[in-house]
Amino acid sequence: MGETWVLMKTAQTPTNIAVIKYWGKRDESLILPVNDSISVTLDPAHLCTTTTVAVSPVFQQDRMWLNGKEISLSGGRFQSCLREIRRRASEVEDKEKGVKIEKKDWEKLHVHIASYNNFPTAAGLASSAAGFACLVFALAKLMNVKEDESQLSAIARQGSGSACRSLFGGFVKWIMGKEEDGSDSVAVQLVDEKHWDDLFIVIAVVSSRQKETSSTSGMRESVETSLLLQHRAKEVVPKRILKMEEAIKNHSFESFAQLTCADSNQFHAVCLDTCPPIFYMNDTSHRIISYVEKWNRSEGSPVAYTFDAGPNAVLIARNRKAAAQLLQRLLFYFPPKSDIDLDSYVIGDKSILQDAGLEGLKDVEALSPPPEIKENAAAQKYPGEVSYFICTRPGRGPVLLTNENLALLNPETGLPK
Amino acid sequence: MGETWVLMKTAQTPTNIAVIKYWGKRDESLILPVNDSISVTLDPAHLCTTTTVAVSPVFQQDRMWLNGKEISLSGGRFQSCLREIRRRASEVEDKEKGVKIEKKDWEKLHVHIASYNNFPTAAGLASSAAGFACLVFALAKLMNVKEDESQLSAIARQGSGSACRSLFGGFVKWIMGKEEDGSDSVAVQLVDEKHWDDLFIVIAVVSSRQKETSSTSGMRESVETSLLLQHRAKEVVPKRILKMEEAIKNHSFESFAQLTCADSNQFHAVCLDTCPPIFYMNDTSHRIISYVEKWNRSEGSPVAYTFDAGPNAVLIARNRKAAAQLLQRLLFYFPPKSDIDLDSYVIGDKSILQDAGLEGLKDVEALSPPPEIKENAAAQKYPGEVSYFICTRPGRGPVLLTNENLALLNPETGLPK
Repeated sequence: MGETWVLMKTAQTPTNIAVIKYWGKRDESLILPVNDSISVTLDPAHLCTTTTVAVSPVFQQDRMWLNGKEISLSGGRFQSCLREIRRRASEVEDKEKGVKIEKKDWEKLHVHIASYNNFPTAAGLASSAAGFACLVFALAKLMNVKEDESQLSAIARQGSGSACRSLFGGFVKWIMGKEEDGSDSVAVQLVDEKHWDDLFIVIAVVSSRQKETSSTSGMRESVETSLLLQHRAKEVVPKRILKMEEAIKNHSFESFAQLTCADSNQFHAVCLDTCPPIFYMNDTSHRIISYVEKWNRSEGSPVAYTFDAGPNAVLIARNRKAAAQLLQRLLFYFPPKSDIDLDSYVIGDKSILQDAGLEGLKDVEALSPPPEIKENAAAQKYPGEVSYFICTRPGRGPVLLTNENLALLNPETGLPK
Repeated sequence: MGETWVLMKTAQTPTNIAVIKYWGKRDESLILPVNDSISVTLDPAHLCTTTTVAVSPVFQQDRMWLNGKEISLSGGRFQSCLREIRRRASEVEDKEKGVKIEKKDWEKLHVHIASYNNFPTAAGLASSAAGFACLVFALAKLMNVKEDESQLSAIARQGSGSACRSLFGGFVKWIMGKEEDGSDSVAVQLVDEKHWDDLFIVIAVVSSRQKETSSTSGMRESVETSLLLQHRAKEVVPKRILKMEEAIKNHSFESFAQLTCADSNQFHAVCLDTCPPIFYMNDTSHRIISYVEKWNRSEGSPVAYTFDAGPNAVLIARNRKAAAQLLQRLLFYFPPKSDIDLDSYVIGDKSILQDAGLEGLKDVEALSPPPEIKENAAAQKYPGEVSYFICTRPGRGPVLLTNENLALLNPETGLPK
């Protein structure tokens, strides 16, 4: 068949950060967790994955490019997602191009996938969550899959567990489910991104020399060796999930912060209880926690902190005012190294810099020690320990981009632009 | 009564390091723990407290000097120890000096106490354990207390929990007990210091800028806030205690190392699960663990590590050969800063330096990367992260020093020499 058409869809999907953590699988291949988890979706304007998927009869095989570089699709996780989406594909008709794809054709057609993160992949900011969510969402649109987001989340989950939570905006719960086939292990939206509109998020990307344990192998080792993990999963988390849902529903920030911080710390405690122990946080992470804890104790919890499988701090401020004060504190303790300007040191929603009265490095140098600090020793500064800060907010779920200019594949060839 | 005699006793008591950790009290004032613990006593030649106690009718009040500086005895813990020892005092007669003290006299007589640690108090090396054990042991000898070491341990326990374990050499178990009055919360010797004569110990005193949480307040906060502590105390530790006793009895180093490392990590996991979280280990501690874990995996567990309420690593080597190889590895990664000579950087039992072929800094500089390291990145060096190393061994329990020259108080005046 001499057809040369290319059909494409481009989607944008956010990353998310768990406030009640997922750590430990009860089924490795289906990626079924040992407990429920809850996350907040981050504004895709600052942290997201964009993925273009294309289908064409001229494609000889499934291929994928990540950030411009071709990568292998042979891994089981990619294969699971592709298989599950293809299985649910429906008839697609593009009258303009004169193309009609029958349901049965999808098994024979190959796809091209190009994906791009608007943030450094290596920064440990859950790029795989946004990536697999975007892959599944874009393929579902291309293949006219009729399932809703929750049903899609069960497919994205098989790519990367936390990816299932990136199919919604706002606050999202991943229900662990009971079924052996994982069909009820899905994400649901608790509230959308407008429900708790005050929250503001600052991410400290922490410099690290350590090579980190991947979360996949880390959580496997925790399940196998930690004597605390099952107690956490069975006794602690179920109660915390209920309290967290209440806190989110009622905009109860103090409870939200207490639960978020405690659960982050307990996840890292389980990592430490693993044999051999896993250390994701470093001295800089510890310092950030100490400063926030001191401030929270003196001023009624303006900020929650949470850390994933790496040293970066995700700091959730009660509101813009607290975020501006937080940024002042963070920049006081962690000023940029002398060769870095403020514009590249604080990225994302830079409007918060104005709220904090910080227009340039002069203003950073002039910052006074936070009032909650009594001892002089605690006013020590650590330039260079933070690589940069990203300012952002809770955000929306996946969207289809209709502007063809934003596609990552060439509409004629289906190859990366 | 115009009498001016002074009676004195001088004792020397070792410090100890727990291999199954004590963390959490069920009774704050009697210092009753939430679980049993097991420790190894360290050779007093390298780490010990020397205490001289004196009694005289001319003393106007109880007084104490620590490392030459007078300190207050008004604290409840000192008062508990003094009260409990006085209650058990017996008749004492010194025919040479023509002194006879009746049992009832002890209530009216005051004591002077001078105590000295042969290691830096600030180094976080359980100085209070050796200190209270020595205070109680020396006073018991002075006052002719008839109770045995286990009974004395219940008194030392009221000064500092872990002090009860310093009343014996070798391996010691602190039985948590059941009685409300704490009478059965005592230390017992599992085996003496000759039982497992191969072991060698290297302590890395780690440089730290952090102000640490005291273990007293830290464990109180853990009991109040950690949701993992009770599970550890009730479900995990009892099984580990049995396994550890077996490992010690059978000289089963691999099991000993596995239990020691896992229990140290779990103690620090509980600290991290505390609200606010407690961090005793720092990046240097983490690095030491990673190196030891890597070596243990490649060579069948030559070394166990354990960390108390601070960043210092206590490394227990299977034998002298393993200790010499350990020292080579430690000095490779953590060489002294350029202005420090090897003689003051490695202290204690320096004979191990010869075993390791390290006679001077030239030999340290010439050390090759350990063979278990494949990646070049892991061969990075961290001069200055360790302040010094102490080489030592398991050691004996308290002894009375009969050489009057070693007394810390003047035999005429009862004041510090």
